[in-house]
Amino acid sequence: MLLPIEWLTEGKVRYLDQTRLPGEEIWRETRDYREIAQAIRELQLRGAPLIGISAAYGLALAAFESEAADADGMRADLREAAAVLGSTRPTAVNLAWALDRTLTTLDVAATADEARALAVSTACAIHEEDIAANHAIGDYGAALLPTGTRVLTHCNAGSLATGGYGTALGVIRSAWEQGRLSAVLADETRPLLQGARLTAWELAQDGIPFTLIPDSAAGIAMRTGRVSAVVTGADRIAANGDVANKIGTYQVAVLARENGVPFYIAAPTSTIDLAAPGGDQISIEERSPDEVTTFGGHATAPDGAEAWNPAFDVTPHEFITSIVTENGVATPPYAESLRRVCGAGVGARG
Amino acid sequence: MLLPIEWLTEGKVRYLDQTRLPGEEIWRETRDYREIAQAIRELQLRGAPLIGISAAYGLALAAFESEAADADGMRADLREAAAVLGSTRPTAVNLAWALDRTLTTLDVAATADEARALAVSTACAIHEEDIAANHAIGDYGAALLPTGTRVLTHCNAGSLATGGYGTALGVIRSAWEQGRLSAVLADETRPLLQGARLTAWELAQDGIPFTLIPDSAAGIAMRTGRVSAVVTGADRIAANGDVANKIGTYQVAVLARENGVPFYIAAPTSTIDLAAPGGDQISIEERSPDEVTTFGGHATAPDGAEAWNPAFDVTPHEFITSIVTENGVATPPYAESLRRVCGAGVGARG
Repeated sequence: MLLPIEWLTEGKVRYLDQTRLPGEEIWRETRDYREIAQAIRELQLRGAPLIGISAAYGLALAAFESEAADADGMRADLREAAAVLGSTRPTAVNLAWALDRTLTTLDVAATADEARALAVSTACAIHEEDIAANHAIGDYGAALLPTGTRVLTHCNAGSLATGGYGTALGVIRSAWEQGRLSAVLADETRPLLQGARLTAWELAQDGIPFTLIPDSAAGIAMRTGRVSAVVTGADRIAANGDVANKIGTYQVAVLARENGVPFYIAAPTSTIDLAAPGGDQISIEERSPDEVTTFGGHATAPDGAEAWNPAFDVTPHEFITSIVTENGVATPPYAESLRRVCGAGVGARG
Repeated sequence: MLLPIEWLTEGKVRYLDQTRLPGEEIWRETRDYREIAQAIRELQLRGAPLIGISAAYGLALAAFESEAADADGMRADLREAAAVLGSTRPTAVNLAWALDRTLTTLDVAATADEARALAVSTACAIHEEDIAANHAIGDYGAALLPTGTRVLTHCNAGSLATGGYGTALGVIRSAWEQGRLSAVLADETRPLLQGARLTAWELAQDGIPFTLIPDSAAGIAMRTGRVSAVVTGADRIAANGDVANKIGTYQVAVLARENGVPFYIAAPTSTIDLAAPGGDQISIEERSPDEVTTFGGHATAPDGAEAWNPAFDVTPHEFITSIVTENGVATPPYAESLRRVCGAGVGARG
């Protein structure tokens, strides 16, 4: 199984630069948590769960870098690193979740060495738990898809967005292995084409047949019977079930309801933010207009063209059939069911 | 005013190669109708009304090329040319409409010279009538937009899609001149980016401020109050008001209804096909998957990725607030109102 990031012995992290896919498979190694922060900012490492995992590894690197003589000094250095890592991207709650969890773990450390060891073991635990969660999500999600399902996904919520295996793509992988799928469609997902570049790459690697479509064809694909279920990931899920995810998710959900197609979210409970009552409380990152007005260094619009480039949107909970987590499937009313799945597992939050 | 195609004396046509915009403004000249057919096929000339006009000019070129000694010989040569021109693209009904109209005009010719003159004058008339129709559409459409309207358009239905001035962009131009618009948003319109490349270019040339958005941001733009009206063109309008237009139009219309935003079609009556009872009878062109899996010669997806690339979709009439034509505004029920606007003007059809 592809691991998009790995902890190497003696304080090094190895990761795949996702901005170069599918053309080039470039693996990078670093000892510097600032490089991890930069990689998150530039989307070399992206996807809500993977952002959290990467940030945790960043803290582990910072712990190796720190020359603090005692546990308090180490904690101070790591709080500083956490501030750098935490400021990289605003929407995925997994980022704050992973940093908070790691810093909290350090509270019990009596020495600098103990704090360093805890930072590393917590990052590795977050990574391993995420992979396990993805497999559980895959199983719970696949069970929702009857044999012959024609599934559509948006953006990339695969191995490349997680610790490995994937959330939405985890569901698709499990359903494919169980013989439940007759077609897999992938939105190309402008502006950065995570569907065309990353989801297509993962599916091709796994030998799962798929059809890429422009984002603008999702509606007519549903209307003409080419889609019988939609599964996407999430960047943050509010307490009422509103979901922030890659720009375009909202309209796929509206089109799904219009066409009687169930719309599923697949995400670990680390993506659920019970502190946000609804989607209005989720900060939506706006990225550079250049991502819209250029492509691969080539201008697609006239010089000086203005563009609006929100990286995410919010899908109101009423468009979501259910939310698949590692602790089971949450269904409406989400205010209750999300609390239940958050309280149910190891690493539960509330 | 920009004319995307022009008849030059002595049997030559000059046209703008739209595939090179916005980077390069390349004007081509030809005496060969086959080159016009190829230009239509390759989208150097595109947009339903402009396809019709270009095909009519193609027949005029064929008339200059013909060495027929009499009117019957000329008519035979032009029927042959019409078959070539008519096979270029299947969806825009303006193509068949312009070819049929020109061939019918030739019925009264007594000599080859007379037939040649009629082919030229008919093509020029089709072009001039289209420009006049666009201005009328602009006036009728602008009247529907209250002061402060934030308008969204999809694809390009401007000067570059018509004889000049534009249908949807004609409405936007007229409304802008009348001070009715507070914002203009343009979908970039993957895969061929007619919004980013062509609509943005036209608006920039006219000094009308605009904001480009990815197609996937149209929904959230509406939901967050950035859009108070949508106007698009059409490639073919069925008798019941179903509209074939650029891929993605259907989902913009669904999102508009979901968000209480009026959705207007702007098109000349030459786009109305009363012989097609509903959208199911409209042939939808599917283009090469390469348009989705590459961009500007660069692969965007892994080698061998399959893609589905329908060039158009059908928006059911129930999503359309009204259809703006040069003969007035058709409102539901369209079965009646479309017959009325088709019967009302010069060049009426039914």
